[in-house]
Amino acid sequence: MRYALIVSYDGTDFAGWQRQKNARTVQETLEGAAEFIFSVPVKITGSGRTDAGVHARGQVCHLDAETSVPAERLRECFNRLLPPDVRVLQSAAAEGFDCTRGAKRKTYRYFAYYAPCEYPLYERYSVRLGERPNVEAMRAAAELLVGEHDFKAFCASGSSAKTSVRTLYSVEVKEERSGDAYRYEIAVCGGGFLYNMVRILAGELFAVGCGKGTEGIKAAFAAGNRKSLGKTMPARGLLLDRVEYDASPFGERKE
Amino acid sequence: MRYALIVSYDGTDFAGWQRQKNARTVQETLEGAAEFIFSVPVKITGSGRTDAGVHARGQVCHLDAETSVPAERLRECFNRLLPPDVRVLQSAAAEGFDCTRGAKRKTYRYFAYYAPCEYPLYERYSVRLGERPNVEAMRAAAELLVGEHDFKAFCASGSSAKTSVRTLYSVEVKEERSGDAYRYEIAVCGGGFLYNMVRILAGELFAVGCGKGTEGIKAAFAAGNRKSLGKTMPARGLLLDRVEYDASPFGERKE
Repeated sequence: MRYALIVSYDGTDFAGWQRQKNARTVQETLEGAAEFIFSVPVKITGSGRTDAGVHARGQVCHLDAETSVPAERLRECFNRLLPPDVRVLQSAAAEGFDCTRGAKRKTYRYFAYYAPCEYPLYERYSVRLGERPNVEAMRAAAELLVGEHDFKAFCASGSSAKTSVRTLYSVEVKEERSGDAYRYEIAVCGGGFLYNMVRILAGELFAVGCGKGTEGIKAAFAAGNRKSLGKTMPARGLLLDRVEYDASPFGERKE
Repeated sequence: MRYALIVSYDGTDFAGWQRQKNARTVQETLEGAAEFIFSVPVKITGSGRTDAGVHARGQVCHLDAETSVPAERLRECFNRLLPPDVRVLQSAAAEGFDCTRGAKRKTYRYFAYYAPCEYPLYERYSVRLGERPNVEAMRAAAELLVGEHDFKAFCASGSSAKTSVRTLYSVEVKEERSGDAYRYEIAVCGGGFLYNMVRILAGELFAVGCGKGTEGIKAAFAAGNRKSLGKTMPARGLLLDRVEYDASPFGERKE
């Protein structure tokens, strides 16, 4: 029987999604709980990997196992065994579902803030900017990224992707004032993403917001390399918010 | 020379504000940095204590010391020495200022959420509720708390306060939907607070939201004891947001 899970985790103390030697990962942690529940080793497949330190609200994964426990109750079985920084938010029967191949759209959110010094209460899930960016300039630059493009320049080396052509459906920039600080959110929705793509893209948008201009983005698309782009933003500001499917085993998620 | 500081901290790994033996506290951490900066031991006085695990965005404190460093630059001196979970947001010269006696209003915020299971990304700064509360019922109950009352019943034992009469200027309840979760914030602004008062008050408001009715509050005021009140909410949902003064050494804080 195939089951699908929606998983949320605080990435701070994980070396990312993918199982690896001598490091605590989300996949290994979930597989450890699964082995206890199903009494046999169970492989858990994620919709995609997240890097060390990246957080997730709606990572989707699937597994094949046999159990008499009703699918919706698997959530509780996992949560009784998992450490506090990872939780199964939903579980469902998912015959014929493939969380990786079936993924149609993913939404990532990048969080940052501008303040005169680090704010301890913001540092876990966002990154401080050295200057206050101009969000109108960021929004104009974001428009250049929307659509189907070869995002080869927005990809860290080490990627094994066959093609670097990807489609972004939307790139939204929000600013919110909170006391003496300004908080920023870049929401990126796309059909798929290359390695470090959102963190590179966010770094460039913040650079544009701080006066860099959009020539770097145009040059990056033209040259297909990262030379004209700014820095990769730190992992802790990144959240995998949701993964969407044509036929989700969970029904529609409320927003 | 007297200086005033606005301090923010993530309370998770602190045993509260007040210096004590064999425990890491905010006061001791700040005093450690101050001793390094001023080359002599310096006492740092806070506007009030916060309990173990309680967070602060705008705790105010003062100290007396001699230095040739301009007052505004003391912030950077502290922040270069402090661990990441505590930061000085502002520093100012403050002749004649007393952060404790001069405090006219304090604002605390209590954060909670309702979701079918714990959300790892919410757990550090808020507390999960077992049921979804009715915010209209909570708001009606909050009105009973506003004004000058004897809050004796809303005080944990061990308080050394001379009188338990306090004035609350406002108690506001907000609800916000976020995916499958509902997030709650209770903002309490008052002239002063008793030991655990906000956490007891928040616990009672959430209980009222979950169907308890307002008889418990009325009985607590009438009897002057906690028997009719619900549980004290956990520390990690509580934030000391700001402390206000008639003449603030920092000028007016932007909101």
